[in-house]
Amino acid sequence: MIGRLNHVAIVVPDLDAAVRTYRDGLGAAVSPPEDLPEHGVTVVFVTLPNSKVELVAPLGETSPVASFLDRNPAGGMHHICFEVADLGAARDRLVAEGMRVLGSGEPKLGAHGLPVLFLHPKDLHGTLVELEEVAR
Amino acid sequence: MIGRLNHVAIVVPDLDAAVRTYRDGLGAAVSPPEDLPEHGVTVVFVTLPNSKVELVAPLGETSPVASFLDRNPAGGMHHICFEVADLGAARDRLVAEGMRVLGSGEPKLGAHGLPVLFLHPKDLHGTLVELEEVAR
Repeated sequence: MIGRLNHVAIVVPDLDAAVRTYRDGLGAAVSPPEDLPEHGVTVVFVTLPNSKVELVAPLGETSPVASFLDRNPAGGMHHICFEVADLGAARDRLVAEGMRVLGSGEPKLGAHGLPVLFLHPKDLHGTLVELEEVAR
Repeated sequence: MIGRLNHVAIVVPDLDAAVRTYRDGLGAAVSPPEDLPEHGVTVVFVTLPNSKVELVAPLGETSPVASFLDRNPAGGMHHICFEVADLGAARDRLVAEGMRVLGSGEPKLGAHGLPVLFLHPKDLHGTLVELEEVAR
């Protein structure tokens, strides 16, 4: 069911410093920062030949990643995103197997403008998993 | 400098349960478990079209992932691995920029039988980064 590994999201306390590390240190292609106020984050995409890393920093007072940084002040890996062809069908299958979808259970538009949902880390062995519907 | 995202390693307390989740729940192709006593882990590869996830469980009394499970009993994302063409050159460049290589600083043979090294998470914004030399 799951397809490509779309991205790994890494939350960082200092986005400029992280950009320097990935661009100047690791020599990767890095996008300009993009504020996503509706998601409460600023993101930078590290483009790799087969996938990408998303560097994520909090934006605003109520950022959904603020509590992650409270627990992990240095930053760290936040979630992994897999592509699916049909998010509704994927959701129904996973819920039928007892997995929990975060929030309302309905897909929302994610940072790429595509439908996404998040599965509960307790049902995925401690890892927060995002599913994104990508037409291919 | 860095190339493909080779894998994301996820440490889990119960490898059989994680295999069921990824194979039967998420519908991914999953390899048979492989014991790597010289690394103190048992691994399962989740093969995705563009990359892979490595599910890792401790093997033996002195597993290097045991302390991670002590801190994260449910499991969680452990490290991310990027490919490089020349590991020695990559190491020299990163050390010159002030990054720290874990252990002796010299490449070792990793779980795939290829030379690897790990960069200190404090120099990578809280994320443990593995570099693997892959000839392409």
